Amino acid sequence: MKIVFINPVGTGEADKHMYRVINAVKRPDVEAKVIHMSQGPVHLEYHYYAHLIMDEMLRAIRKAEKDGYDAAIIGCFNDPGLREARELVTMPVLGPGETCMHVAATLGHKFSIIIGRRKDLPIMEDNLHSYGLGEKLASFRTVNFTVPQMTTEQERLHEAIEKEARKALEEDGAEVIILGCTMESGFSKELMQKLKAPVLDAVVITWKYAEMLADLYRGIGLSHSKTFDYESPPKEEGWLKE
Amino acid sequence: MKIVFINPVGTGEADKHMYRVINAVKRPDVEAKVIHMSQGPVHLEYHYYAHLIMDEMLRAIRKAEKDGYDAAIIGCFNDPGLREARELVTMPVLGPGETCMHVAATLGHKFSIIIGRRKDLPIMEDNLHSYGLGEKLASFRTVNFTVPQMTTEQERLHEAIEKEARKALEEDGAEVIILGCTMESGFSKELMQKLKAPVLDAVVITWKYAEMLADLYRGIGLSHSKTFDYESPPKEEGWLKE
Amino acid sequence: MKIVFINPVGTGEADKHMYRVINAVKRPDVEAKVIHMSQGPVHLEYHYYAHLIMDEMLRAIRKAEKDGYDAAIIGCFNDPGLREARELVTMPVLGPGETCMHVAATLGHKFSIIIGRRKDLPIMEDNLHSYGLGEKLASFRTVNFTVPQMTTEQERLHEAIEKEARKALEEDGAEVIILGCTMESGFSKELMQKLKAPVLDAVVITWKYAEMLADLYRGIGLSHSKTFDYESPPKEEGWLKE
Amino acid sequence: MKIVFINPVGTGEADKHMYRVINAVKRPDVEAKVIHMSQGPVHLEYHYYAHLIMDEMLRAIRKAEKDGYDAAIIGCFNDPGLREARELVTMPVLGPGETCMHVAATLGHKFSIIIGRRKDLPIMEDNLHSYGLGEKLASFRTVNFTVPQMTTEQERLHEAIEKEARKALEEDGAEVIILGCTMESGFSKELMQKLKAPVLDAVVITWKYAEMLADLYRGIGLSHSKTFDYESPPKEEGWLKE
Amino acid sequence: MKIVFINPVGTGEADKHMYRVINAVKRPDVEAKVIHMSQGPVHLEYHYYAHLIMDEMLRAIRKAEKDGYDAAIIGCFNDPGLREARELVTMPVLGPGETCMHVAATLGHKFSIIIGRRKDLPIMEDNLHSYGLGEKLASFRTVNFTVPQMTTEQERLHEAIEKEARKALEEDGAEVIILGCTMESGFSKELMQKLKAPVLDAVVITWKYAEMLADLYRGIGLSHSKTFDYESPPKEEGWLKE
Amino acid sequence: MKIVFINPVGTGEADKHMYRVINAVKRPDVEAKVIHMSQGPVHLEYHYYAHLIMDEMLRAIRKAEKDGYDAAIIGCFNDPGLREARELVTMPVLGPGETCMHVAATLGHKFSIIIGRRKDLPIMEDNLHSYGLGEKLASFRTVNFTVPQMTTEQERLHEAIEKEARKALEEDGAEVIILGCTMESGFSKELMQKLKAPVLDAVVITWKYAEMLADLYRGIGLSHSKTFDYESPPKEEGWLKE
Repeated sequence: MKIVFINPVGTGEADKHMYRVINAVKRPDVEAKVIHMSQGPVHLEYHYYAHLIMDEMLRAIRKAEKDGYDAAIIGCFNDPGLREARELVTMPVLGPGETCMHVAATLGHKFSIIIGRRKDLPIMEDNLHSYGLGEKLASFRTVNFTVPQMTTEQERLHEAIEKEARKALEEDGAEVIILGCTMESGFSKELMQKLKAPVLDAVVITWKYAEMLADLYRGIGLSHSKTFDYESPPKEEGWLKE
Repeated sequence: MKIVFINPVGTGEADKHMYRVINAVKRPDVEAKVIHMSQGPVHLEYHYYAHLIMDEMLRAIRKAEKDGYDAAIIGCFNDPGLREARELVTMPVLGPGETCMHVAATLGHKFSIIIGRRKDLPIMEDNLHSYGLGEKLASFRTVNFTVPQMTTEQERLHEAIEKEARKALEEDGAEVIILGCTMESGFSKELMQKLKAPVLDAVVITWKYAEMLADLYRGIGLSHSKTFDYESPPKEEGWLKE
Repeated sequence: MKIVFINPVGTGEADKHMYRVINAVKRPDVEAKVIHMSQGPVHLEYHYYAHLIMDEMLRAIRKAEKDGYDAAIIGCFNDPGLREARELVTMPVLGPGETCMHVAATLGHKFSIIIGRRKDLPIMEDNLHSYGLGEKLASFRTVNFTVPQMTTEQERLHEAIEKEARKALEEDGAEVIILGCTMESGFSKELMQKLKAPVLDAVVITWKYAEMLADLYRGIGLSHSKTFDYESPPKEEGWLKE
Repeated sequence: MKIVFINPVGTGEADKHMYRVINAVKRPDVEAKVIHMSQGPVHLEYHYYAHLIMDEMLRAIRKAEKDGYDAAIIGCFNDPGLREARELVTMPVLGPGETCMHVAATLGHKFSIIIGRRKDLPIMEDNLHSYGLGEKLASFRTVNFTVPQMTTEQERLHEAIEKEARKALEEDGAEVIILGCTMESGFSKELMQKLKAPVLDAVVITWKYAEMLADLYRGIGLSHSKTFDYESPPKEEGWLKE
Repeated sequence: MKIVFINPVGTGEADKHMYRVINAVKRPDVEAKVIHMSQGPVHLEYHYYAHLIMDEMLRAIRKAEKDGYDAAIIGCFNDPGLREARELVTMPVLGPGETCMHVAATLGHKFSIIIGRRKDLPIMEDNLHSYGLGEKLASFRTVNFTVPQMTTEQERLHEAIEKEARKALEEDGAEVIILGCTMESGFSKELMQKLKAPVLDAVVITWKYAEMLADLYRGIGLSHSKTFDYESPPKEEGWLKE
Repeated sequence: MKIVFINPVGTGEADKHMYRVINAVKRPDVEAKVIHMSQGPVHLEYHYYAHLIMDEMLRAIRKAEKDGYDAAIIGCFNDPGLREARELVTMPVLGPGETCMHVAATLGHKFSIIIGRRKDLPIMEDNLHSYGLGEKLASFRTVNFTVPQMTTEQERLHEAIEKEARKALEEDGAEVIILGCTMESGFSKELMQKLKAPVLDAVVITWKYAEMLADLYRGIGLSHSKTFDYESPPKEEGWLKE
């Protein structure tokens, strides 16, 4: 089986990092591929930026399906293009936001999400409600890092995340911590040992969930519903050519 | 003052119709402009189709602001690109879905939305919740018309809408009816007289609300918040060139 | 067109102030009339006080309709008598609470409401839920001014409002500020410039919304639903004489 | 101990009926008094009618407190004037709507409310949400009787109620039935035996709850909170004279 | 009439205390019986501990019904075994959590619950939502006392409760205080005088509510619904022997 | 890795069936063990019956952890004892109700749950809300089969399920179907092909999710939170002996 993880940004700088995080947890029988966009912004902190990479990303997901991939992951916690992608292909397409929030809900009473900037909160909160999980949120907590800062100041980032995660557990009633940005990945095991509470790494969790769905897709044909919301555009209308 | 109404589809067929609907209700001191996309699908019943027209639509909204328009209307009840557009400009940008749901809530206890196909319901329901209005919904009711059918079979459409609207009032507890597609416009006055209940024409209501916001924008500087959700991308990142 | 703004208190002291606020934003083709009650409390901070002015207020609204007014505004953010008034007349009747909360929801992700005393919060919160907008509230914030203090200590009031509004934006996640008392009116433009965020003046916003509804009422006959909640008492029962 | 039950209508026709219903369930050590208004409508199906009796009703409640009553019941399921009354007195004041909904919630998973006319539903639904019990509602069901019809056609009323109650249990998932009008009282015991499910008579349940609160009021001083919502108007403002 | 109050713990240490609290408020015509378990933990702070006493507790409730009791109270605020018990008997069975939350909702706009340890919060919050009262909660506040500490350090406990209750009223918007542990009983009258706000003693309130339900059960046959949720297991399946 | 699936009933009749269902989907590197209780009811349709098997089931889960199992599944859709079990062990413990509802939410806009008897609905609905997923439910639909009937009348059961699932998709707006009883397992693949919509087999989905969590538990130490809700009882209190 093979799964593609898409860094939906116009830079390959984080690809190696993602390979490292995925390889540390992936099943030996699953092949990992990490890709990025050929152009576009290096982060998706603005809704408009998500639009700018959308075309190439959707094309990449359709190509992955044709190339025999078993599942695709949109590597941004805001889950941009999730609906569009699921409309276009049959295989499972996952977003870290949706996946992590649901997995967190099965591990404890309430979760907190540690995000980069306050700017991201409204779209995430709307997603949280669309996913039906408003009642499970303890809090959003912000570390005030832009995505570029996250890359260059990893140590300071980890300290800031640990600090906010502790507050979430002690003041907000969280029982589970979600690291709400794929750039906050690669250190959840250590953090978990420090905090003595579950910490969900968006890359790790989404990858493992993708493995599970890929199994179910190939094994019994289970994938996203094509009834209503993700119904594919009819070929004869001509917009699916390539 | 001047307001632009965007038909976000790759055809100008409905432009005249929209002019007629708008001219029947607009204030004499406001200038109306209706535009359409130079290419793309002729309807937005698929999330992917909304993506296909997004780039040209966002460009058109930015251009309208530069050309001195006082407000812009995205003429599709699903409100595609509302977040992106508000990030990019300062003037008010309106979507008929958001506008009509809020106005309906001020006119009666619960509203029903008459939509074309069941396919549209999930995105509209998610929008309804994002707009915070889940409690005010009496029901969605579907007429089972595609957008192209709406254009060519107006009489049959009006009958179907009247039938579903009556059921909404009598069986679902609706007090207000929203016509949940801009192609269901131009006959709300007649329908209102038949049903003896408020009927919101998506084009009419959004236009009048846009006049109000344009007044407030030019009069006292009120527009969408630039705190958090609609914060504009910084010029120096270079993605707003043109 | 002409619209009546009712100060539902037994004093005319604030009438001039309201004329000033309204005249600064009203359309030239709309005539403004401000009235007050001939007797009763000078503020409505108690539910009982709202009862004390109710009779004269409802009479005034019915009279306004007979005198050809196109809409009426109940000038208290608690929206006292809104249901009763809509039952009695056909023209639009607006309350600042309902109007501002819905308009705020179209301008940003969440809003905060700056109120006078904590005493007002429960009724406003119940209204918020009746209007279906519980999810859009960031916070209520209190300035601890009685209504009479608001009148005599305007400068101190403005400072207190600015302070609480800043906290709402910075600590509570508000993107839009509502000034939740008609006596907090007349300085939203200045406040907006200081805060760099939308500030809704209850008098201004309700007035502009009333202009819009009056247009729609005269133009196409749109007003509050008479189905169920606002159904008028039958003449033959004899309680509508006069 | 003595409790007053107020028929908030301008007729004493139902007083005897209420005495009969109350006497069948009251504790021997509690004295029952039933009163009505000296004028006003004979039913409260319109919000305006509730306003018309409000003044005399509030006066009666204040007088009851002075006369040493231990609790008062506002005998209309819409709970008109509950907030105002609690502001004016210290003893417990109860409304059948609030009381029955909470008691029903302690007797089964969901309840249905059988009401007279669809007109009453919006205010009751808003009350339901204000009381915080939206999740416990299985359904409202309407018998299409005006209050005057309820009085004159008791047998047909009982049949209609039984029929709708059965539907609520079999189709809507109700486990408990609330008779949502004080004029639907006096036959819950028989109905309970037929339906084999709990049926809450608004007069019976509110009376027994009033006995409980009166005990707690006289025994340990417990009554409605005077913090915030029910804070009494200050004497010195002069509106509580009599 | 006679009502049994069950201390669902393996110690009789608190029985006298409960008798004292109940005797101070009970009606003279009602007989009180307090019992405890013959073995098991001395507190129920863990879900597993509630399981450990369940068998004996359910047996005791069935025995009480056979012995002619009119109602039973499960004396733990977490309401363990409430569903099971209601399935097994016909008489009213009450839990302090459910009872106090509903009574609190009839006494003020929002309530706060003062609990022993943060550990108890998730189960109580789930119960709160099952009871349908999520909207009425102002806050949970924790005193950080284990149940054994509550018994031995009464004075320090009372001080801690008073302190948290004050914060709930002043900072969280509570209008009513619930003492969310049966071991926090016996001093609500004094606390009420200090706080000048309603304070619900879990033992007192549940007892009085039980008196009311016992009256209704014996008087007109009202008790928990046997439709769906509390339907009793059929005798012929053989698990109700004894 | 090895995972134990517990049939929490006093019969081994369904064990072979469960092995067959699990073996058809399990990863080759995971060992499956199915166990049942040595005594107790043969179904858990009553809350009391769930209590009757609880002690042996919790003991079995603790033993499994000691024997080196990597995860345990409580094989009943009502998820009895989930909280207690998670308190007692460190490895992941899963219930099919919680697991399937969350997975369903990631596969489509709304799901319907096909259950055996209406009796089960209240506890499942409360669980649904505890899991935070109330907004994602399209409907519960009942086939009116007892668990014993499910075993003996498989063909008729499958027809009934298919019929209700179709109604859920066509009338209730479901996009995903959950088979809400572990005895409704073993034919989801066929049903999926007939319905052309995702169908979640409670045994299949919970098993695959358990494989995922077991991986994460052994790989990086992730499991249920021990903060607050699932905190283990302290050894020194002596109730965890054995």
